[in-house]
Amino acid sequence: MSNEVITTMQLSELETPALILDSAIMDQNIQRLHDRLSQFKVTLRPHLKTNKSADVSRRIGEPGTPITVSTLKEAEYFLQHGWNDILYAVGIAANKFAHVASLMQKGARLTLVLDNTESARTLAQFCREQAITVPVLIEIDTDGHRSGVPPEAPLLLEVAGLLGRSDAESGAWLAGVMTHAGASYACTSTEAIEAMAEQERAGAVHAAQRLRSAGYAAPVVSVGSTPTAHFARSLDGVTEVRAGVYVFFDLVMRGLGVCSESDIALSVLCTVIGHQKEKGWVITDAGWMAMSRDRGTATQSVDQGYGVACNIDGQPIPDLVMIDANQEHGIICHRHDPGQTPMLPVGTLLRILPNHACSTAAQHSGYVVVAGTQDIKANWPRFSGW
Amino acid sequence: MSNEVITTMQLSELETPALILDSAIMDQNIQRLHDRLSQFKVTLRPHLKTNKSADVSRRIGEPGTPITVSTLKEAEYFLQHGWNDILYAVGIAANKFAHVASLMQKGARLTLVLDNTESARTLAQFCREQAITVPVLIEIDTDGHRSGVPPEAPLLLEVAGLLGRSDAESGAWLAGVMTHAGASYACTSTEAIEAMAEQERAGAVHAAQRLRSAGYAAPVVSVGSTPTAHFARSLDGVTEVRAGVYVFFDLVMRGLGVCSESDIALSVLCTVIGHQKEKGWVITDAGWMAMSRDRGTATQSVDQGYGVACNIDGQPIPDLVMIDANQEHGIICHRHDPGQTPMLPVGTLLRILPNHACSTAAQHSGYVVVAGTQDIKANWPRFSGW
Repeated sequence: MSNEVITTMQLSELETPALILDSAIMDQNIQRLHDRLSQFKVTLRPHLKTNKSADVSRRIGEPGTPITVSTLKEAEYFLQHGWNDILYAVGIAANKFAHVASLMQKGARLTLVLDNTESARTLAQFCREQAITVPVLIEIDTDGHRSGVPPEAPLLLEVAGLLGRSDAESGAWLAGVMTHAGASYACTSTEAIEAMAEQERAGAVHAAQRLRSAGYAAPVVSVGSTPTAHFARSLDGVTEVRAGVYVFFDLVMRGLGVCSESDIALSVLCTVIGHQKEKGWVITDAGWMAMSRDRGTATQSVDQGYGVACNIDGQPIPDLVMIDANQEHGIICHRHDPGQTPMLPVGTLLRILPNHACSTAAQHSGYVVVAGTQDIKANWPRFSGW
Repeated sequence: MSNEVITTMQLSELETPALILDSAIMDQNIQRLHDRLSQFKVTLRPHLKTNKSADVSRRIGEPGTPITVSTLKEAEYFLQHGWNDILYAVGIAANKFAHVASLMQKGARLTLVLDNTESARTLAQFCREQAITVPVLIEIDTDGHRSGVPPEAPLLLEVAGLLGRSDAESGAWLAGVMTHAGASYACTSTEAIEAMAEQERAGAVHAAQRLRSAGYAAPVVSVGSTPTAHFARSLDGVTEVRAGVYVFFDLVMRGLGVCSESDIALSVLCTVIGHQKEKGWVITDAGWMAMSRDRGTATQSVDQGYGVACNIDGQPIPDLVMIDANQEHGIICHRHDPGQTPMLPVGTLLRILPNHACSTAAQHSGYVVVAGTQDIKANWPRFSGW
């Protein structure tokens, strides 16, 4: 099943830029959330949108364990690789119904999400016509950052009223609720993340209780984000937790206090190709195409530019960051004083820690895997698109 | 040679998100720059990093015409599709020499770029050892935005001194100079772009004259960016002009006054999947993964968020922009007054004009081609990575 390719190369033999994954760090990150959640009675349903790789995902859980995806292409791919219990966590639209039906015919146990009566009505009608039974979660808005029905809203029961009460007969049936406290990415302290986790939990549980009072079993209460999963003090009433970035971590998570810099498993290997010595600039061959345009730390207390520069062993070089980017050029400079930028010789290899693992990984077609040294252990392919 | 797939579908039959290219608009854009440059004695060497597609590139020029690329993967791909006169416009590093040699063995007439003595020395040595003859342009810094040797710098002649004077014998030989006035993207008026174009031209020509005074033929003077290519009043002394974004155009170019909104050939088709009515938000299934994280208009006089919302025919809906994005969710809202956001029904198809054609196109594996209507004319694949 694996496309894994074993190599005997070193990082220094690569053409750059290249996406490097330290699997030793990754395995620690995976273990950390596993251990943390084991104290609660919840299922981890990892979000595989971050890694889009069967090789990475097998380190999280064996095929067959529950997963979350953000596109039907991810659902299709992970189904082909043996995962069939799949939550598609973006509101379903009618132009995806046929694809959903095709995935179910291939054996997917898909769960869908919606937050409005139009989607519930059209999905229910489609499922009746096609004699398909599909579980549906109503998305709950617990933090105001995106989609979802507020836990208190009358709309919650209106949407529920368009769905079946169980899988006893074919159709779209209400399996419960899901929420994602994406606002946790804007928290400025771990106390704030704890509070956000409680808000996320309480809102989802409250919505589920309203549904149960109205006669629905609503067995599923699905919550999660990487920050709240790591700081929730109670998960009472929650049945499953979703998180994705925690596998790799990144500078945004480091800025939030969810991880430290040494927990970041992902980096972009690049080569020094020139200098602007008078400006204190070191120019590399990893621009925004290799890092993505994500500037997620720009609004945090420490702006990391396009990323933190490390040596080839992954050790950060003090105060050296990627301050700007062209498509295929990176500009590396001392954070505070360009005069202190070390003029690393042309040909020097650097590893740049990314702001956001999801967006940087998406710029690459695979992971070059190491485990604490410069030895390349494997090349793991990943995919993109829809 | 073409991977073109002819279809008889309509835009409304697509699963979303999808990248839409209006080839009628594109052809106009291509013709416009062709016509403009025909008044000057220069060669157009289009930058294909924007489109990364043989199908698009054939509309610009037949295989065999001169091209510019930003990665050796682009060089490899376009060589396979018949283009052999290729400028690789990013400073060369030693870990790419073997790839360069392999491309030359396959028939590429590659031109390389560098701006420092270390690269010149190592490349010259490699070429001597391998008995390879490769033309080199010294990158000139005419605007302070990135790489390159200032036109007046003593370094120019130091670098030149490490290169051969002609292709009469094997080795790396100095074919001339190249510069890219990327600072033109930050101009706030067309007058400023005109001035930047003259600065770009004058700096490159001056550098070439210094080299000629030192005994080098330096036949090539390569300049260009989409803004300066459209506003240069003189190209005296210039031998070739490079531009890439002009084929598609985008909101950044519109903000600069280089094109109008109706000249933008690229858009992302998406579907309304929900609302937050009290906030005036329409939620779609095109997030930053479909648009990219590029916020290039954020520093312009009109911030277009993640893009301008159009109806399925590509007509902008007044003041409707994509104000925020999650990975697979877009938030559409009235630019000034959320209360005026039209609550477009769930299922409505929208087309979002991108800030930056290069970065948005890079998020997709192909173009769905239309020509002024909703009829899909073709699917053109594109590639990414290194």
